[in-house]
Amino acid sequence: MSAAQAPFQYQLLIKQILKMPIAQASRRQIVYRGDLRFSYPQFVERVHRLGGALAALGAGMGSRVAVMDWDSHRYLESYFAVPMLGSVLMMVNIRLSPDQIAYTIDHSGAEILLVNVDFLPVLDAIRDRLPNLREVVVMSDAAAPPAVAGSAGDYETLLASVPAHRDFPDFDENTQATTFYTTGTTGLPKGVMFSHRQLVLHTLALMSTLMMAGLNGRISREDVYMPLTPMFHVHAWGFPYVATMMGMQQVYIGRFLPDVVCHLLRTEHVTVSHCVPTIMHMILNAPAAKDIDLTGWRVIIGGSALPRALCEAALARGVDIYAAYGMSETCPIMTMTQLRGDILDTEADRPEAEIRMRLSAGMPGVLCEVRVVDEAMNDVPHDGASVGEVVARSPCLTPGYAGNAEASAALWRGGWLHTGDIGTIDRDGFLRIVDRVKDVIKTGGEWISSIGLEDIVLTHPAISEVAVVGIADDRWGERPVAFVVAKPDRLVDEEAVRAHVRAHADAGAISRFAVPDRIIVVDALDKTSVGKLDKKVMRTKATAMITPASV
Amino acid sequence: MSAAQAPFQYQLLIKQILKMPIAQASRRQIVYRGDLRFSYPQFVERVHRLGGALAALGAGMGSRVAVMDWDSHRYLESYFAVPMLGSVLMMVNIRLSPDQIAYTIDHSGAEILLVNVDFLPVLDAIRDRLPNLREVVVMSDAAAPPAVAGSAGDYETLLASVPAHRDFPDFDENTQATTFYTTGTTGLPKGVMFSHRQLVLHTLALMSTLMMAGLNGRISREDVYMPLTPMFHVHAWGFPYVATMMGMQQVYIGRFLPDVVCHLLRTEHVTVSHCVPTIMHMILNAPAAKDIDLTGWRVIIGGSALPRALCEAALARGVDIYAAYGMSETCPIMTMTQLRGDILDTEADRPEAEIRMRLSAGMPGVLCEVRVVDEAMNDVPHDGASVGEVVARSPCLTPGYAGNAEASAALWRGGWLHTGDIGTIDRDGFLRIVDRVKDVIKTGGEWISSIGLEDIVLTHPAISEVAVVGIADDRWGERPVAFVVAKPDRLVDEEAVRAHVRAHADAGAISRFAVPDRIIVVDALDKTSVGKLDKKVMRTKATAMITPASV
Repeated sequence: MSAAQAPFQYQLLIKQILKMPIAQASRRQIVYRGDLRFSYPQFVERVHRLGGALAALGAGMGSRVAVMDWDSHRYLESYFAVPMLGSVLMMVNIRLSPDQIAYTIDHSGAEILLVNVDFLPVLDAIRDRLPNLREVVVMSDAAAPPAVAGSAGDYETLLASVPAHRDFPDFDENTQATTFYTTGTTGLPKGVMFSHRQLVLHTLALMSTLMMAGLNGRISREDVYMPLTPMFHVHAWGFPYVATMMGMQQVYIGRFLPDVVCHLLRTEHVTVSHCVPTIMHMILNAPAAKDIDLTGWRVIIGGSALPRALCEAALARGVDIYAAYGMSETCPIMTMTQLRGDILDTEADRPEAEIRMRLSAGMPGVLCEVRVVDEAMNDVPHDGASVGEVVARSPCLTPGYAGNAEASAALWRGGWLHTGDIGTIDRDGFLRIVDRVKDVIKTGGEWISSIGLEDIVLTHPAISEVAVVGIADDRWGERPVAFVVAKPDRLVDEEAVRAHVRAHADAGAISRFAVPDRIIVVDALDKTSVGKLDKKVMRTKATAMITPASV
Repeated sequence: MSAAQAPFQYQLLIKQILKMPIAQASRRQIVYRGDLRFSYPQFVERVHRLGGALAALGAGMGSRVAVMDWDSHRYLESYFAVPMLGSVLMMVNIRLSPDQIAYTIDHSGAEILLVNVDFLPVLDAIRDRLPNLREVVVMSDAAAPPAVAGSAGDYETLLASVPAHRDFPDFDENTQATTFYTTGTTGLPKGVMFSHRQLVLHTLALMSTLMMAGLNGRISREDVYMPLTPMFHVHAWGFPYVATMMGMQQVYIGRFLPDVVCHLLRTEHVTVSHCVPTIMHMILNAPAAKDIDLTGWRVIIGGSALPRALCEAALARGVDIYAAYGMSETCPIMTMTQLRGDILDTEADRPEAEIRMRLSAGMPGVLCEVRVVDEAMNDVPHDGASVGEVVARSPCLTPGYAGNAEASAALWRGGWLHTGDIGTIDRDGFLRIVDRVKDVIKTGGEWISSIGLEDIVLTHPAISEVAVVGIADDRWGERPVAFVVAKPDRLVDEEAVRAHVRAHADAGAISRFAVPDRIIVVDALDKTSVGKLDKKVMRTKATAMITPASV
């Protein structure tokens, strides 16, 4: 008898995550802003009701259902109910421009939109550009939600109008479950897509990878989880599925406000979070965080490299902070740091070795193959020094970009997903991301990592944030320029910063070509909608401001 | 673009487990009996060499390669190399009779046999009944292994004769990877089978399930793993794949000898094991174990219910002991105990509640659906009291028995795998196995759990081991009879034991019909080849010995 003849073909479906007794019967809660608390049985019932409500609005196999909300219990409900109907969950990036929001909703083919009242003004402005959109459901924290003309009604009212239980269908595990749009620095946003199989495998692989390390991260179902990543951003990195499967206490923050976050950290006894470096920086520096005991808080940093200064500041507060690596195209988690006893036991300077591990992108997670290759797709030596592009295979990678064959082919050239990142791998399997392929600075015949240079600038005591970009130079090819933000009540002296970097160059830490031509002090760095440095904008600004000086 | 059009179709293959950098580059070791130590890179190389050696003997897609060995690094190598060739690993139950061994090897279609020199006498006796067997490879711990007439040669010599690296093929994830034979109490042994997809998913699900609990088990890759389950028994419950994927220190014991096990426990600093209750009982009572600090040793008990007395004895030694549940047909792990803080925090008698959790079969593991149903396949109430047959679905269950359509259909009737176990589920999702369908005792119109009765008999201070069986009785239907083994230097008084049980009946813990008619003292209980109580044999013996008395 072969598997094909098996009496029961188990499909990897998102509904299986919710079926686990630990999720159905957990006595923990789903908490929204500290105001609303749902038991797991209530949560499961609400998922069933949402499924019923959406089905009543016509959602079925292949329907696109878009969501515009802050991080909420409602968003979590949609993570399950929409794919469980066989529909596709479209997570709208609410930080995009109205033009881009209109483009992505329309391009996804969304027929139904669940929208928080906070975004109704945006919707009003673009509604006439959404010909496919049939139904709008309004979500509100208010006890008496406003009546909205042209909407199918209020989320809670619709949930109350359908049965508490629904039989969700079985279908092929390769059925698409989610989509969202990634905004590169050029061109229109591109839609990535993930199937039920991919999300279930990502959930299992992320769980295993998260819990495997013994010296950091030790996450279990006794933890209290609070994401600090927007839920529209790559399924909040897949963690809500993990937290639900484990029946963990979960806390959703609504709109991100540092004071609210600090309040919830303390009152909800949060022990596990994840975010980009900028958010962690904001929290550590929020006045409300001064008096909170952060000891034992596990924080996984992704989206951008974890800066050493931020890592040290968090460790000094007792936070178990460490890096993970992935991107929109990869579901997202590909690698994660593990403090490895088998290595640390042999290190003379163990604290320094630990910090180096925390700052690295970590090791490939379960079932993730990660290579660093040269232009001919040959592996570079695993010596921690040889650089190349990071390429990957795993069961969780987007098969391409929706309706964009050219970009899809480029993403997958040679049968490997190309990340556009430059990295190194060491003998122990740790990946370090050196730079984006587009951000590395080629000057005087050398390649300079903008991220490495930023780390050095950031060690200057007056500087709070930094971004280094390369601008074209007739003589050198490119030259580095640094945008910096001063710490509160500090003045940045450009020459002192240059001297600071030059001292590192003199010590041999970096090339002397890496000393930036200019240090430009700004109030804030340009960032993309998901909080990453927008080096394209900064490169344009720097080019406009500066005629590069020769070194 | 759909998944079917994806540029790269990731298949869940066993080779992916070995590809992980943490497995390739771990600085931990694979240890055999404390005598041989292999680094992970050496181990990976040996897997490649074994693949090459088997390929040179003609193994390829679909070939059957059988193994007869004690628990060893060689067995672990075969767990990977054989399926990675596309061949099927047949794990021979070395405890079966020569007749059964001949039947199972022949029925599996094995062409190649890897055999430990200890089993050459058995092989000699049955060789002429193995017409399909083309090649025999001899495995030995001796530095200069004996030359064996008619064999392809010695394992180490063959490994040394082929290249250190081999490109293993890609193929469909539903390709069969393993087979072995399960011996019920009736009929011929039946062959179960598992695919690459099933074993990879079992590995991920087991990892996640193992590490999810926060109050027991906390297993990580910093642990030292030593199986105490034979590796022919359901892939040593799948743990070697987990340990390898995590790059853990692994210790293999060779032939099971309590003194060797105790020695290795101490010298190798073992922290995680799994075994049947009998083995744990032997170790705790081994003279060599008296002086070992067992604090913090995590031991997962399966194969039979974890008796309360054994649990308490282990806990008293500082062992973190808890139960898991599964069977040959289920890959095997289906459920595992988690001490759940969300429940324990509400319990008045927390220590007692903890022990009850440790003794239960636990909760369904990740992706495992477990139901307790009545004869019409309706779920019984989740009240911890209503009993029914345990049925299951998961991505890891055997599609049936090789070449036995009738037994396969019975196993999967109604689209659910029937375990033949009677259990209960409580409101929190904990499963308790009450009895085998065949072992439950029907007397005086009541169903009495033989396991529940055994637990009570075992609380008598003179008794070390017990098995209760039902024998036919004209008046009552069946009547219980207990076989007991006395503790060293203790005498068992039959009437005192009956009084002891009667006291529990008087207190309402069990029915008064459950008081056994006879307590039969024996030197050892009859057990099957995998160490489970052989109640079929005991039932026959008891029937022959006793004319049931009326109560």
